[in-house]
Amino acid sequence: MSDHDLSRIRAQAPLVHNITNYVVMNSTANALLAIGASPVMAHAVEEVEAMVALSQALVINIGTLSTPWVDAMLQAAKQAARLGIPIVLDPVGCGATAFRTATARALIEAARPAVIRGNASEIRALANATGTTKGVDSLHTPDEAFTDAQALSRALGCVVSVSGPVDLIVADDQVARVANGHPMMTRVTGMGCTASALSGAFVAVNPQPFEAAVQAMVVMGVAGELAAEKAHGPGSFQMHFLDALYGLNDADMAKRRKTSTS
Amino acid sequence: MSDHDLSRIRAQAPLVHNITNYVVMNSTANALLAIGASPVMAHAVEEVEAMVALSQALVINIGTLSTPWVDAMLQAAKQAARLGIPIVLDPVGCGATAFRTATARALIEAARPAVIRGNASEIRALANATGTTKGVDSLHTPDEAFTDAQALSRALGCVVSVSGPVDLIVADDQVARVANGHPMMTRVTGMGCTASALSGAFVAVNPQPFEAAVQAMVVMGVAGELAAEKAHGPGSFQMHFLDALYGLNDADMAKRRKTSTS
Amino acid sequence: MSDHDLSRIRAQAPLVHNITNYVVMNSTANALLAIGASPVMAHAVEEVEAMVALSQALVINIGTLSTPWVDAMLQAAKQAARLGIPIVLDPVGCGATAFRTATARALIEAARPAVIRGNASEIRALANATGTTKGVDSLHTPDEAFTDAQALSRALGCVVSVSGPVDLIVADDQVARVANGHPMMTRVTGMGCTASALSGAFVAVNPQPFEAAVQAMVVMGVAGELAAEKAHGPGSFQMHFLDALYGLNDADMAKRRKTSTS
Repeated sequence: MSDHDLSRIRAQAPLVHNITNYVVMNSTANALLAIGASPVMAHAVEEVEAMVALSQALVINIGTLSTPWVDAMLQAAKQAARLGIPIVLDPVGCGATAFRTATARALIEAARPAVIRGNASEIRALANATGTTKGVDSLHTPDEAFTDAQALSRALGCVVSVSGPVDLIVADDQVARVANGHPMMTRVTGMGCTASALSGAFVAVNPQPFEAAVQAMVVMGVAGELAAEKAHGPGSFQMHFLDALYGLNDADMAKRRKTSTS
Repeated sequence: MSDHDLSRIRAQAPLVHNITNYVVMNSTANALLAIGASPVMAHAVEEVEAMVALSQALVINIGTLSTPWVDAMLQAAKQAARLGIPIVLDPVGCGATAFRTATARALIEAARPAVIRGNASEIRALANATGTTKGVDSLHTPDEAFTDAQALSRALGCVVSVSGPVDLIVADDQVARVANGHPMMTRVTGMGCTASALSGAFVAVNPQPFEAAVQAMVVMGVAGELAAEKAHGPGSFQMHFLDALYGLNDADMAKRRKTSTS
Repeated sequence: MSDHDLSRIRAQAPLVHNITNYVVMNSTANALLAIGASPVMAHAVEEVEAMVALSQALVINIGTLSTPWVDAMLQAAKQAARLGIPIVLDPVGCGATAFRTATARALIEAARPAVIRGNASEIRALANATGTTKGVDSLHTPDEAFTDAQALSRALGCVVSVSGPVDLIVADDQVARVANGHPMMTRVTGMGCTASALSGAFVAVNPQPFEAAVQAMVVMGVAGELAAEKAHGPGSFQMHFLDALYGLNDADMAKRRKTSTS
């Protein structure tokens, strides 16, 4: 496990191009800035290829879709694949509607992501096309989706990162679990989306997407724990979470992380 | 008056489907999560019917309109009506432009809302098509719009909730006023939109929309008072407001509410 | 230099119409409310002309473009010019993609802005069509863009406000520098966009756009300094920044401002 990725993000300030949902644009941009990355948002077909070409990672999040955005996502994903820029896909609500499931599938057919990060039901839905989600909330623990995650990882040759009380990260035979985090994180919108955005920052500086995906979940979990220690509710939690992301360093992460591999 | 609705929201975590404006998507999602509901945002014509079908309430807010969104709102409203899912309509800026007034009218013609929540000038504009608003700010106190609110309620058979220093909730002959709240709420964007979103959570768990609309305004007002006690300005107010929503319970509400009926 | 503009904003509560990017809609609306202005957001071609006609200033920000938005921006800019309503243009990412550069140019050809506010590389790109930006981050200090800013100001007959460690405001031969501010401001998304939004509030109450542009940068910088004194990171910084905007008065600004003219 690399112990220097957070320092690398701060030294390199990688440009992370996000095509994401309206709900979390502000909070994910702020999370990326807080850990030292440089976020940019652009979603027009007229410019996504040019913006991808400037970026070190592309994060695609389907949380508030419409057809023009799907067109831009597909174009951006293909451009990233052409240029060797790693892609993180967050299939928000996959399984909840046919439109989301179809879009998530079209995206993985257009270009192989480095990392797919979702909750258990989204990952299952993407893997099986038989799952169902209650909006964007998870119906299952990550480990219930283990078989789905591994199948998806093997089929696509990518990392699958399933968030929940204990996060599960799978890349073929490699498996890691991250037990950091706090229940308050489920009372703030877009924490999953933030995990995907931060995964983009880590894949931008670490050529091993499995390690990058694990680091992103550790950062999320540790910052969540630090924030929860000071918070009186989800409002103050959000504030302390950004402050924690800003203050974290690689040594804190190495000390506080609760990871296991198998 | 039901004294258990907040507990019901927390026990049932109703899925509240929001088709709302860009400005408040994050803050209203966070307010819904803070009181224990489960927000989802979806606005594409390809999926709004499917998402409505999963939901326990639909909140439509016209704060940042464009034609594709109007199409989706109309489709979602009709689907909610077909399935008996309660609708909350927030006619933001109705009266400020002809486009907003026409859209608000088209929505009430497409499907009867359970609750219309707006400020006095929006309600008057919707009732009379003669009002004028200065953007989204209210020109009138709720009681100045009493006649308009009652006429609108009777014409549509719905609850009309008019927010202001003293909120006015009208359903035909039923009238309630809520004197909770704090002036700092006018210095934070989207507090009215948040009131509409929370109205969606209450109508999702209470089959009496009049009661639900009153409860939503009491929760807003009490949380606003609690937040103002600790705030040093609108930034800290927002934080404490979410913390207060999270910490509130039915007993607090029963104790602190300043409601009158006539 | 006018020492009463903040008081004027609070007394007049000017309506500032923003056609801005998704990332900052909430934060800029809150900043405008915190200093006492009245923000409105509207971007549909069906209503922008009507909304501009109600407004005292128009702020156009190209941070998350698409063709329908460009159409509305052009229409709104022309309407503002017809009605003599001052325009603030924020050419976010100008130079990063051809689409943004072309849009920024089309906007200045459609209507002369009162103030163009950007970072050094955006201003250079707009002036020279030869610059390059790394997303929305500045590659140059404002003073490196002095020649570009002055050329742009002279060509268009407008104020050019270049933000950075020391802000540079140029109007033909008039030059001012504002040395207020704090490095934490670069770790929060949309602080530049907020500067543009506040510039809109000042041009709404002060007929001298050069003075208005300087005042806006002083307010940004002083509020940033006050917030940084209390903040533990970018999360708490944002909160204290809004509280500081709310609490600032003209006397504080006169006392704390670090401005120089040449």
